[in-house]
Amino acid sequence: MVTMRDVAQRAGVSIATVSFVLNDTKPVTAATRRRIEQAMSELGFRRNVVARALASRRTHIIAMAYPALDHKFGFTAAEFFTSAADAARKQDYHLVLWPVGNDGTELTELVGQGLVDGVVLMEVQLDDPRVGILQETGTPFALIGRTTELAGLDHVDIDFDTTVEEAVGYLHGLGHRRLALISGNLKDPVFRTYGPYVRSEAAYRRVAAEYGLETVVLESGGSTRAGQEAAAQLIREHPETTAVLVVNEFAALGVLSGLTRLGHNVPADISVLPLLMSPETAAMSDPELTIMRTPGPELGQLGTEALIRQLEGATPLPPQLIPATLHPAGSTAPPRSPGDR
Amino acid sequence: MVTMRDVAQRAGVSIATVSFVLNDTKPVTAATRRRIEQAMSELGFRRNVVARALASRRTHIIAMAYPALDHKFGFTAAEFFTSAADAARKQDYHLVLWPVGNDGTELTELVGQGLVDGVVLMEVQLDDPRVGILQETGTPFALIGRTTELAGLDHVDIDFDTTVEEAVGYLHGLGHRRLALISGNLKDPVFRTYGPYVRSEAAYRRVAAEYGLETVVLESGGSTRAGQEAAAQLIREHPETTAVLVVNEFAALGVLSGLTRLGHNVPADISVLPLLMSPETAAMSDPELTIMRTPGPELGQLGTEALIRQLEGATPLPPQLIPATLHPAGSTAPPRSPGDR
Repeated sequence: MVTMRDVAQRAGVSIATVSFVLNDTKPVTAATRRRIEQAMSELGFRRNVVARALASRRTHIIAMAYPALDHKFGFTAAEFFTSAADAARKQDYHLVLWPVGNDGTELTELVGQGLVDGVVLMEVQLDDPRVGILQETGTPFALIGRTTELAGLDHVDIDFDTTVEEAVGYLHGLGHRRLALISGNLKDPVFRTYGPYVRSEAAYRRVAAEYGLETVVLESGGSTRAGQEAAAQLIREHPETTAVLVVNEFAALGVLSGLTRLGHNVPADISVLPLLMSPETAAMSDPELTIMRTPGPELGQLGTEALIRQLEGATPLPPQLIPATLHPAGSTAPPRSPGDR
Repeated sequence: MVTMRDVAQRAGVSIATVSFVLNDTKPVTAATRRRIEQAMSELGFRRNVVARALASRRTHIIAMAYPALDHKFGFTAAEFFTSAADAARKQDYHLVLWPVGNDGTELTELVGQGLVDGVVLMEVQLDDPRVGILQETGTPFALIGRTTELAGLDHVDIDFDTTVEEAVGYLHGLGHRRLALISGNLKDPVFRTYGPYVRSEAAYRRVAAEYGLETVVLESGGSTRAGQEAAAQLIREHPETTAVLVVNEFAALGVLSGLTRLGHNVPADISVLPLLMSPETAAMSDPELTIMRTPGPELGQLGTEALIRQLEGATPLPPQLIPATLHPAGSTAPPRSPGDR
């Protein structure tokens, strides 16, 4: 059977261009169109009528691809999802959640069926294989997150630089000089190039250096249990620490309860500041956590907006970076000996 | 335009039988088939080729309908969803999450498109309008939950009777005689006939009566904040209470932190036992909560299994009720004066 790839090769164009002509989704110059049509006719390419109808119909359904089996789905993820669903509904679209893996295998099976008009990608990796798959299949998409190569991609993301600057500045202002970061487990292949871990750590190293602080970075899995273990490691290896930043929200809850169980009072002995957390999660802990509040509601809405503008042929949404914002509560305080070095 | 209904009337058969012939989904006797084909020809009935292809094709996608804008999506819901997604994947299906409202309006729009082979319904109400919609549109479905009328419906659910019996029996065995139940807010139209609230309360009233205990029932919204308010109300109106059962997991977290903030030690002054919670949520609190563990992983798997058996024409899964199971931890203990009445 002759495929779009064969047609593209013969005509000397990309598969995407063939798709534009077939589905009439983007304007193509008359010359290119002629070349493609000639290649189709020479190769005997004939699209199945049903497949064409399926491909061209608009379902007004968009999917949020969230790798729920690898990335725990908690309150923060729910904030992204529900705000995206709400934004879609307001524009007469339906949003569904696809719990497909990050490697793109399942995504390939799903986008081929013409079930959705477009995809919002969550939990983006620096070298995300899902991007290539969506491009090859001509599926409109927007990223909540950033790959290394971003040219021409609609995206919105957390502003990790500003977030970490505000967090470190706040702790420094309280008098803390012995900080540590508990980041994610970059040895785990699923998280090796996971944007939030990589970018938070890079920002922390840069900002700590600017303040002339020693950098301490520990890794933790994304669970309460793993956070408790990281807390024990921190106390064992860096007992001088007076404040700790934690990237993963579940690990942060574990760091808090782990420190408490080891007899360390939060915040009197040590301050705990999660870099990405929802107020709902923060309210669960005792003391209530001071947090950098994840801009989940904003980003869910903007990511969906970016995709829908693409689908409707409207002016693209410019890329946006939104910082997490400081919500002071009960897990941070000045150190026992201010300015202790 | 001639419809399937016209054909059914002319042939003197049900619309379903016309559909079986058109889509070749179930065997129909040769005589009936002939009668239907004749009616089609006399009436000039011609199904659009694309519509037919759409209606008959199998997408191998199933949807879990979860009203995420009304029912908070936390760890417990995530357990249902991820175990369902996993079960689907193992049988070569994809599961997506549809955050559609409980009233059925959006569901109607979605099932008409032939995008999914079937639907798993979550957060079922006693008089759930979604059931009628799925029946009318001929969409295969299974319930995780129970409506009042269940005849012929594939369903699995929590065994609330056994769950409450075990919970009350455990607290009674510790010496508690002054129990209270914090249930959901049945005045809120969204939760008025929400199965877990209605069934937990009914079971509690029955079991408490069997033990000869006074019944105290308070209502709470499903949030940490609402749980904190319910805790304050409990202390104000029923200060003699030594143990409290809470249905909603977010309210339960609020009851725990609310009691603590009001100066009541859990479990020394009062025991707290959530009736439906995931271990993940329980581990977040300090002290770690003793819980009745929601059988989310089991029910997500079984609900999906029930639907897929239907889709594959296999033997139906018999209805199953699974109780939550007691996981003792730090929020329950004997009362200060055992047997205090």
